[in-house]
Amino acid sequence: MALTLAAAQGMVQAALAHARTAGFRPLSVVVLDARGAVIAAASEDGTSLKRFQIAKAKADGALAFGLGSRALERMAAARPTFYAGAAHVVDGLIPVAGAVLVRDVAGALIGVVGVSGDTSDNDEAAAIAGVTAAGLVADGG
Amino acid sequence: MALTLAAAQGMVQAALAHARTAGFRPLSVVVLDARGAVIAAASEDGTSLKRFQIAKAKADGALAFGLGSRALERMAAARPTFYAGAAHVVDGLIPVAGAVLVRDVAGALIGVVGVSGDTSDNDEAAAIAGVTAAGLVADGG
Amino acid sequence: MALTLAAAQGMVQAALAHARTAGFRPLSVVVLDARGAVIAAASEDGTSLKRFQIAKAKADGALAFGLGSRALERMAAARPTFYAGAAHVVDGLIPVAGAVLVRDVAGALIGVVGVSGDTSDNDEAAAIAGVTAAGLVADGG
Amino acid sequence: MALTLAAAQGMVQAALAHARTAGFRPLSVVVLDARGAVIAAASEDGTSLKRFQIAKAKADGALAFGLGSRALERMAAARPTFYAGAAHVVDGLIPVAGAVLVRDVAGALIGVVGVSGDTSDNDEAAAIAGVTAAGLVADGG
Repeated sequence: MALTLAAAQGMVQAALAHARTAGFRPLSVVVLDARGAVIAAASEDGTSLKRFQIAKAKADGALAFGLGSRALERMAAARPTFYAGAAHVVDGLIPVAGAVLVRDVAGALIGVVGVSGDTSDNDEAAAIAGVTAAGLVADGG
Repeated sequence: MALTLAAAQGMVQAALAHARTAGFRPLSVVVLDARGAVIAAASEDGTSLKRFQIAKAKADGALAFGLGSRALERMAAARPTFYAGAAHVVDGLIPVAGAVLVRDVAGALIGVVGVSGDTSDNDEAAAIAGVTAAGLVADGG
Repeated sequence: MALTLAAAQGMVQAALAHARTAGFRPLSVVVLDARGAVIAAASEDGTSLKRFQIAKAKADGALAFGLGSRALERMAAARPTFYAGAAHVVDGLIPVAGAVLVRDVAGALIGVVGVSGDTSDNDEAAAIAGVTAAGLVADGG
Repeated sequence: MALTLAAAQGMVQAALAHARTAGFRPLSVVVLDARGAVIAAASEDGTSLKRFQIAKAKADGALAFGLGSRALERMAAARPTFYAGAAHVVDGLIPVAGAVLVRDVAGALIGVVGVSGDTSDNDEAAAIAGVTAAGLVADGG
């Protein structure tokens, strides 16, 4: 099952709806497919200059390793030099909660949603809300 | 006047609606604000792996020089080494039609729309359709 | 249909077998899947220092645009500044014959084979031989 | 003694055979010669998007310093900023076990094998198995 633009846009909107209801600070949300291609993205009014890049680097890292970025955060705490080196060679990696893998109901990896702008926990909650609203399975790590 | 997410999403949707009506090949559309921040983006089903990066590099180049990318295409034909060098130092520049500056009705630059996926002329037509639908002014160069 | 390691290794071996039979100069051959991940690669004895990178950049370019690299070579001759800019933003692009898309029998894109070391025509012939031997469809552009 | 493609391919196959017998997770294995050129590589079915880059960065780091990457891991624990900086300037360095230098029986450095996909200890075990099977000497650091 491939990730469609319609599904990706639905995830962006649902993630932002969650953030507005919960009163989060302005977010950037990006959805990549399993290839790492940007399928949909949105940065709310008031986001800082490179907020999109932060959200995307969380998502890129999750996809690079096939793990939700919360798992990467735990691993990076134990082995910081691994992730410093990896950030260089995978061209984008922020090992912090806020990027969740997107799986179809059969468990196949079809993409990733990365969020940045509030606390990492809140970023992740918005990402999960987006994935769940699309009827897909979120894997935060 | 600042570019809002709502306006940027409206431009993306109108650009894609134009493309579907006109029968263009699958497009990536990206909207940057005047600072170069990614505000909204979409890649249609069937776009190739790096289509987003191509659309964004057209937009980045237009913003880098404050000119619609059709003007950059003319200038690059006359001075290719200038733009080859510039592509490196501005970290993203494709001097080809398809990125149009977005101005408010007073003429102030508020962003840029970059499109890639069909011919450059068609990419530009989709970008202009997006800007116009938002009640803003498109400057293709 | 996903590209397997077994199929990719078969393509590498068949491409090299073609090159040895035909008396080509030493080659690097690389097979990427549809995500752009390196699945299999080989550099023959006597290849120069960066031959692998040249083969990979042909393959990366083909996948970036979804076109065999012979098509990119024609397009780059007409619009060199487009490809100079694209080379920067897609992080790897040599628009020259020698990379062929790999499609399954249903026509789905499942990967790309890039070859470098002899003339571009011979590089492409080796790539096509590799794909064909695997029972897949080569699209040189 | 130069590293041949035949020897490099043998090391890849023996490393993967070890991994399958031992039940490791899917691996990427890359063999570089003493110049840092990619001679052979393989990514098993199910490897994540950037697994090849991780394996290669372990190998690149080992070659950069002439030390198996287990030694680099110890040194990076003591001096993390050294390796964070080095990762940038050598363009690829992950100072973690899993890359072993390849020496001929006279002790001359002829290449390096880098592995990623399971724990670092298991990655290194697969690399050592590959080198040993080729009748060469593995130096893990």
